[in-house]
Amino acid sequence: MNFISSRENPNIKLCQKLLSSKKYRKEYGMFVLEGARLCLDAAGEGVPFEFVLVSSGAFEKNPDELKILEKSSGGRIFEISPDLAQKLSDTGSTQGIFAVCKTLDKKDITSTICNNGKFIVLDNLQDPGNVGTIIRTADAVGISAVLLCGSCEIYNPKTIRSTMGSLFRVPFIENCDLREVLDEFKKKGIISYAAVVDFDAVSLTECDFSGGCAVVIGNEGRGLPDEDAGMCDKKLTIKMKGSIDSLNAAMAAGIIMWEMTRK
Amino acid sequence: MNFISSRENPNIKLCQKLLSSKKYRKEYGMFVLEGARLCLDAAGEGVPFEFVLVSSGAFEKNPDELKILEKSSGGRIFEISPDLAQKLSDTGSTQGIFAVCKTLDKKDITSTICNNGKFIVLDNLQDPGNVGTIIRTADAVGISAVLLCGSCEIYNPKTIRSTMGSLFRVPFIENCDLREVLDEFKKKGIISYAAVVDFDAVSLTECDFSGGCAVVIGNEGRGLPDEDAGMCDKKLTIKMKGSIDSLNAAMAAGIIMWEMTRK
Repeated sequence: MNFISSRENPNIKLCQKLLSSKKYRKEYGMFVLEGARLCLDAAGEGVPFEFVLVSSGAFEKNPDELKILEKSSGGRIFEISPDLAQKLSDTGSTQGIFAVCKTLDKKDITSTICNNGKFIVLDNLQDPGNVGTIIRTADAVGISAVLLCGSCEIYNPKTIRSTMGSLFRVPFIENCDLREVLDEFKKKGIISYAAVVDFDAVSLTECDFSGGCAVVIGNEGRGLPDEDAGMCDKKLTIKMKGSIDSLNAAMAAGIIMWEMTRK
Repeated sequence: MNFISSRENPNIKLCQKLLSSKKYRKEYGMFVLEGARLCLDAAGEGVPFEFVLVSSGAFEKNPDELKILEKSSGGRIFEISPDLAQKLSDTGSTQGIFAVCKTLDKKDITSTICNNGKFIVLDNLQDPGNVGTIIRTADAVGISAVLLCGSCEIYNPKTIRSTMGSLFRVPFIENCDLREVLDEFKKKGIISYAAVVDFDAVSLTECDFSGGCAVVIGNEGRGLPDEDAGMCDKKLTIKMKGSIDSLNAAMAAGIIMWEMTRK
């Protein structure tokens, strides 16, 4: 394994750029996975790596895992110093394992939205942790796809970390147009619900999720704009016992997805 | 309103200490609320403030809110410079509103655990955001009390922020002994469940939560130790469609609490 010692090395500089800003991720069409588990998850799902950076000693005890990453990168695996690894890292204490990948192929709305599927639409969600947690939960409960309209970027290191590898398993589409998505739902006979805080809306537990269905979740602070909610077929609400706004967006989405797929 | 300009002012130094470490929060028996919403929530719930710090201009447009905080602090409200506010703050961009409070009265296990109540027990949860989110969700769905066994401190600024004021509404007890809690459940006829990842455990949707019940949630990484799970009456699991560990601890707890209180 070749050793990279210089911060000026092009691979290091690329990795740093990709970790630092959406602009570079978009420009290069690449993003970075950090941590053994995420990298191995991606390798397990067949995601090809551009190259892998491993801190000295990080894999000494895990030669098998090193082999997997070496294979997924076509041999483009480099050793870096622990200092350099910490400098790259987005976290307080890094495992020192980074994989640079091409952004996933953008899926097509028409083929992603299937009859009888269960979909979650994120309308202007801004917190990377929330978006990641929602994707992770969608994976757990078996949601058909996550559609993001104007929400934060999925390749943000915080989002990636919160998905815990689920972004390789759950189909998602970024930068969707809400109207286009809702039109496609109509065509496929999928009932769309706007998740709102409104006592007059249908209670989540009274919604019929037996067929194709979709729920649109609004922004963390402002919720779903009336205009967007009005474009959906119905409105649903989580009836609270306690304080009316006592669920964060990820938790609300999680409970809604749980109900959508609950048997 | 008196103006504090010096970083050496005793109130500023106290606030800084309380924000910086659990040690000081324990020593002084106080903690800090940051942000208009949290402070107003606390005031609304009758929490008395030791004193309040407000950044110059922060409340210029909200004289009514200022009056509420002034009242809750018995007039001990001080203006500080925006610079000083940012220095104190735990967040990237502060609203510049801080209330220093006494830690809430520690509740008693015997009187907190009531017959027919619904309880959530956090066994060694370590992430402040998770603990805060669980308390917030417990408030929303109407859980009777949250019992923390060896979990992270509730007065951590990150935990407080994630609770969004729910810590003033949901009864909670820190530093519980799990065995003592489970003994009390037994005495009160409350069925205790260990939340585990185990296909042989009872599926969450098949549990009978109609009477008094309690669920013990384990640590984010390691889950619930066998020994602790074995002390509970039953084991429950969230049957996943996707990857087996695709729910974070807060989301798993949220979905479990939703089911415990679902009508």
